[in-house]
Amino acid sequence: MSEESVERVRVAAEAARVASRRLALLPRAEKDAALLAMADAVEQASERVVAANADDVRRGEEAGTRANLLDRLRLTPERVSAVAQALRDLAALPDPIGEVVRGSTLANGLQITQVRVPMGVVGMIYEARPNVTVDAAGLGLKSGNAMILRGGSAAASTNAALVDVLRGTLAERGLPADAVQLLEGGRDDVRALVTARGLVDLVIPRGGADLIQTVVTTATVPVIETGIGNVHVYVDAAADLDMARAIAVNSKTHRPSVCNAAESLLVHEAVAEEFLPKVLAELGGAGVLVHGDERTATFAEQAGAAYDAVTDEDWAAEHLALEMSVGVVPSLDAAIEHITTYGSQHTESIVTEDRSAARRFVAEIDAAVVMVNASTRFTDGGEFGFGAEIGISTQKLHARGPMALQELTSTKWIVQGDGQVRA
Amino acid sequence: MSEESVERVRVAAEAARVASRRLALLPRAEKDAALLAMADAVEQASERVVAANADDVRRGEEAGTRANLLDRLRLTPERVSAVAQALRDLAALPDPIGEVVRGSTLANGLQITQVRVPMGVVGMIYEARPNVTVDAAGLGLKSGNAMILRGGSAAASTNAALVDVLRGTLAERGLPADAVQLLEGGRDDVRALVTARGLVDLVIPRGGADLIQTVVTTATVPVIETGIGNVHVYVDAAADLDMARAIAVNSKTHRPSVCNAAESLLVHEAVAEEFLPKVLAELGGAGVLVHGDERTATFAEQAGAAYDAVTDEDWAAEHLALEMSVGVVPSLDAAIEHITTYGSQHTESIVTEDRSAARRFVAEIDAAVVMVNASTRFTDGGEFGFGAEIGISTQKLHARGPMALQELTSTKWIVQGDGQVRA
Repeated sequence: MSEESVERVRVAAEAARVASRRLALLPRAEKDAALLAMADAVEQASERVVAANADDVRRGEEAGTRANLLDRLRLTPERVSAVAQALRDLAALPDPIGEVVRGSTLANGLQITQVRVPMGVVGMIYEARPNVTVDAAGLGLKSGNAMILRGGSAAASTNAALVDVLRGTLAERGLPADAVQLLEGGRDDVRALVTARGLVDLVIPRGGADLIQTVVTTATVPVIETGIGNVHVYVDAAADLDMARAIAVNSKTHRPSVCNAAESLLVHEAVAEEFLPKVLAELGGAGVLVHGDERTATFAEQAGAAYDAVTDEDWAAEHLALEMSVGVVPSLDAAIEHITTYGSQHTESIVTEDRSAARRFVAEIDAAVVMVNASTRFTDGGEFGFGAEIGISTQKLHARGPMALQELTSTKWIVQGDGQVRA
Repeated sequence: MSEESVERVRVAAEAARVASRRLALLPRAEKDAALLAMADAVEQASERVVAANADDVRRGEEAGTRANLLDRLRLTPERVSAVAQALRDLAALPDPIGEVVRGSTLANGLQITQVRVPMGVVGMIYEARPNVTVDAAGLGLKSGNAMILRGGSAAASTNAALVDVLRGTLAERGLPADAVQLLEGGRDDVRALVTARGLVDLVIPRGGADLIQTVVTTATVPVIETGIGNVHVYVDAAADLDMARAIAVNSKTHRPSVCNAAESLLVHEAVAEEFLPKVLAELGGAGVLVHGDERTATFAEQAGAAYDAVTDEDWAAEHLALEMSVGVVPSLDAAIEHITTYGSQHTESIVTEDRSAARRFVAEIDAAVVMVNASTRFTDGGEFGFGAEIGISTQKLHARGPMALQELTSTKWIVQGDGQVRA
């Protein structure tokens, strides 16, 4: 790790710390007014942002980037407006800071109160999608945190343009511009950021498995892991099969490249013969390659779905593509066991009309989100009503599932007394 | 790191995982009955535990261990009873598991509910005090977690005897003995434990600065840091000076070797002349060495307190002894600035009758616990009414301040629908 990187991060983090002390004390009205002003400024700068984005897209095309990644990267005036709208949505949400979480009066008369406070300085390391830059800045401001952003190099020009607009707005309003900073150096900067103990309170990596693994294994700053989803839909013996088909197909095909898309379909043997032909025909029709077990093979052929034999690697894989591992299980127990073995504790859904099966699945499946009769695609901060989202935590510490304002806070105990001492 | 250590931790963690799946589903009544049975068993085994402890103490004496450390290590029948009582106190507390944290019904009819669930497998790395072994096992059981305990080698015989009693009780009641395991290998076992990603959900180090630093810098498993306390008492211009004296002396001398003991005393210049002679006389009388600034020097001499000139290292130090850094500040702002520079974000206390000064101190000091007119010694899970405590978090992620049952839980989102899919 180069000395320049360590120094660059130190300077950024110290400026962020100073900014964070201002932010921590800002009343809600000032934060919301700044968010609305940032939204207007982003929309007014739409032409400039789209032009910077076109540079990034051109570089991506020249480098042979895949079409779906280029699509994630690309901004249009409509997408810029949607990015700005997220800031307005955040302004409308309650302020998490100052919320009283719990409290009591002790036997000795001391009053103890636990209240939400900002984390302080938060590092965010992410990949291509430039809306994350604005979402993270907005979530940071509303939750009173100074954000050090490290976007992917593929979106460098777009991110620079967006952060310039956001910082300009903060400065115009007399707020510290260093509440939002962009770290533009190479990989050494990432390493310096995740090892800046005492300077940075939290780092959130958001992206592919490699990025998250790298951050988690090198970080000495507290980290919240996000995002790997080997997500299952289990169709129970007592499922409404039309509902099950709609949920399985929606979970797999609505947006296959994201972490809450389903990767595996487990079907109770009691309904396999009736259910599989229909669902496989629909999946096949949507262009899904089926990795099936032996009992699935015949149905896949009948349904005309592209098929190969499922392997252990398939069961463990996050395909993030139009591929699905499909198998028949003899019981609810077997489904729970399979999900416990192969799942990534992100989102798991059961389709059933059997109350007892639903209760067992909900109790025994260990995952961030457990669903009954719903598409796995609903695991999302926006869908949950959180406004923007900063990522989906797949770990158990601090936050689990979609993360937004509340997950960017810590707490502080306030103890009020009249001179109490310990005997 | 030796292969034997990695293998030993893998075997322990996998057995703990199996046990944790049982624990997660245990009704409160079964957990409480087991805690009461464990308390009885510990008391019945008192003679055996005290004998094992005598071996540890003898080894410590032969190795020249300091008297205060030997005192922390030593168990008497009375102390064994106190250890057992902590288990009974835990049985009386509400079950954190299953608590509904928040929830709502979304516009599309989905009902989302966030409920508390156990972490799963928790590693605990700690030093000499053998009561931590029983507290951690009890907190783990009540919160549905399997605990892998790594106590200090100084308490090896005591811990082995205690864990044997606890495991025996679990087994007798048909509960998984592997819910409580003791890791008895060398330092390689610690390294294997803190890098057992996917096998261990959380590691809590509790002990001195070296232990915590080692764990934090080598861990790849999520960690909660505990315990360094450079704790301040600030005596404001508007303080009740008798109250201030009692709080300063109690915070420093009640138990100087623990993290919530005060290390620094800051006094507003408006009351320095009246306050310092009295408090320094009392501190001096209690055997406290005063590291004082220039303005403190004269008063220390008058008061007959042992004195030397305070250094930057003193201001930053966690003395954990009868030593206190003392200085005069010109204003509340200067006090806040000093604490922000030197504090460790553990516990900070202001003594004042001025409502506005108290409000500013509470808002602007960034610490796990901020107090008004109370001794810093109250930062403690037992004092806060949490039953036993697993440590005091000085980080901002997940838990901050005293940690007990709630801090050993994660959450799970439950989403209940009627076939909702995303459009």
